[in-house]
Amino acid sequence: MLSMRQIKDRSEEDTFLALDIGGTNVTCGLVSRVGEVLSTDIFPTRDGRTPDALISLIINRLKVLWATADQTHRPSALAIGAPGWIKPLEGIVVTAPNIEGWVDVPITKIMSQALELPARLENDANLYALGEWLAGAGKGSDNEITLTLGTGVGAGLILGGQLWNGSFTSAAEIGHIPLGPAHTAPCGCGRLGCLETMASARGMARLAREWLEAGRKTKFRGSPTELNTEVMTKLAERGDPMSLDVFQRAGTALGQVLAGVFNLLSLERAVLGGGASGAFKYIRKAIVEYLSVHLVTAKIDEIQIVKGTLGINAPLVGAAALLNAGGF
Amino acid sequence: MLSMRQIKDRSEEDTFLALDIGGTNVTCGLVSRVGEVLSTDIFPTRDGRTPDALISLIINRLKVLWATADQTHRPSALAIGAPGWIKPLEGIVVTAPNIEGWVDVPITKIMSQALELPARLENDANLYALGEWLAGAGKGSDNEITLTLGTGVGAGLILGGQLWNGSFTSAAEIGHIPLGPAHTAPCGCGRLGCLETMASARGMARLAREWLEAGRKTKFRGSPTELNTEVMTKLAERGDPMSLDVFQRAGTALGQVLAGVFNLLSLERAVLGGGASGAFKYIRKAIVEYLSVHLVTAKIDEIQIVKGTLGINAPLVGAAALLNAGGF
Repeated sequence: MLSMRQIKDRSEEDTFLALDIGGTNVTCGLVSRVGEVLSTDIFPTRDGRTPDALISLIINRLKVLWATADQTHRPSALAIGAPGWIKPLEGIVVTAPNIEGWVDVPITKIMSQALELPARLENDANLYALGEWLAGAGKGSDNEITLTLGTGVGAGLILGGQLWNGSFTSAAEIGHIPLGPAHTAPCGCGRLGCLETMASARGMARLAREWLEAGRKTKFRGSPTELNTEVMTKLAERGDPMSLDVFQRAGTALGQVLAGVFNLLSLERAVLGGGASGAFKYIRKAIVEYLSVHLVTAKIDEIQIVKGTLGINAPLVGAAALLNAGGF
Repeated sequence: MLSMRQIKDRSEEDTFLALDIGGTNVTCGLVSRVGEVLSTDIFPTRDGRTPDALISLIINRLKVLWATADQTHRPSALAIGAPGWIKPLEGIVVTAPNIEGWVDVPITKIMSQALELPARLENDANLYALGEWLAGAGKGSDNEITLTLGTGVGAGLILGGQLWNGSFTSAAEIGHIPLGPAHTAPCGCGRLGCLETMASARGMARLAREWLEAGRKTKFRGSPTELNTEVMTKLAERGDPMSLDVFQRAGTALGQVLAGVFNLLSLERAVLGGGASGAFKYIRKAIVEYLSVHLVTAKIDEIQIVKGTLGINAPLVGAAALLNAGGF
């Protein structure tokens, strides 16, 4: 067992490498043992044209990040956040619907050998949730969920102050919770009516395209391919009926799923993070409206729906938390 | 700390009183420390015409049960299972939508004073789940949910081998998880489209009445007021299209909610108990059909959807588990 003095020494000297593989971007980071983000490198996931090319690219970028960092501190481990269905204990990405061609990728072994570092794999949204819980908007709450609104909709669940993985280390797959028979839009996973079809960046862009195709009133003047949550957030601020409707419908779908989550688990907080969280104030309004009606495990003012504060740093901070907890 | 010999002695001598207050029936029981049900007394909840009358009736029946039991063994504690929203730590039933007039009832204090016994309160479905987990169909699974299909739809959640209560000791309110915009039937709780509107005994009777009112084909020849799950189970065995349709729709609604529960928590088992579980084989079929499509956290053959084995004894066995864990 380390003494407090030894821990302090190690925290000053040690660093971790952190890797977050998202559907849109890959984020590499060098973080201190206590979760300070020392340097980052971000690039589009599609820069790796094939699964193998993406892995080679990630290895090179991590090596560069490491090489340009302070040379006196050798990183002691790597934490990998990956989307989709993963097996953390075996270090395998089983399927990642939002990354083309990733099936049964032994990512931990590959990275560990290439970088000559011990490595650990966790679901990307779980890392994000760990980060927000330790140092962000989830701090101080031991029973909470953090949602990541990005290419897909991910989540990480903190129960009793610990990350919850469940029987198959596959928990918090909130993006593929079905919304019921009124929802029939196809999801990237091949199913119909998953939460992602309404509340992911892709789902919200689809809702907006349908609005345009129906010839309804909007302040948007561009091509449908330019529609994204950033554009719609700016339009919503100008009162655009299309963008406001899309965020209302996305928030209502999130509210429906969160009503189930809160009523099942008697949680006290939900944190909303991820790339689409710029639209937080619009989406939150619809979520709270829905929960005000359907929450039965607490009064609406006893729970919190809050915006994540760490942004793209969240999974990097979470990486430090994961590796510390793992004894690296 | 007790030695094994002392525990054995105590288990031979000690008994607990158990009380399960349901929307339809009240069950009183005398159970051994290890969960053997020694004697029971069941009566309709409506025999207590007012909240006070029901409480007096329960006290009298528990006293009679106790008096007619082996006089050498004084029960050492009482466990109370109650429906609706309760505060276990304060011993208060806040609201019980299926029992008329029960609002802010300090049931633990009342029972404890009347019987001169320490008492502990828990949600009725949680007691049921504890029983099935310890000695029934939930045995051997540490991450599971037990559903009680009765007047309402209740549930108890076992996570990491422990009963999960959550931040507000109100977890597993599965009956009031919303089914989404296609479901607009009024629930006993005042909301629209809760799971109970489709999958409770009341909800299934409503679906059958609507079938009758539409003049659709059925083998049922009685009055609509005679419709219940027992009657429909017998009719389903004779191929009645109405009963089969009702169970299919109830099971699909349960499948939708369970898909959410499994995808959120990565569970390995769901146990179906309660009064309506006679229709288990029909309801299970629809649940498995739904989960076969929407389960993403495991393969369908890696999880189990099983029938509870303890019946009305489940909450009594659960009472012993609760009181043992509580150190009584």
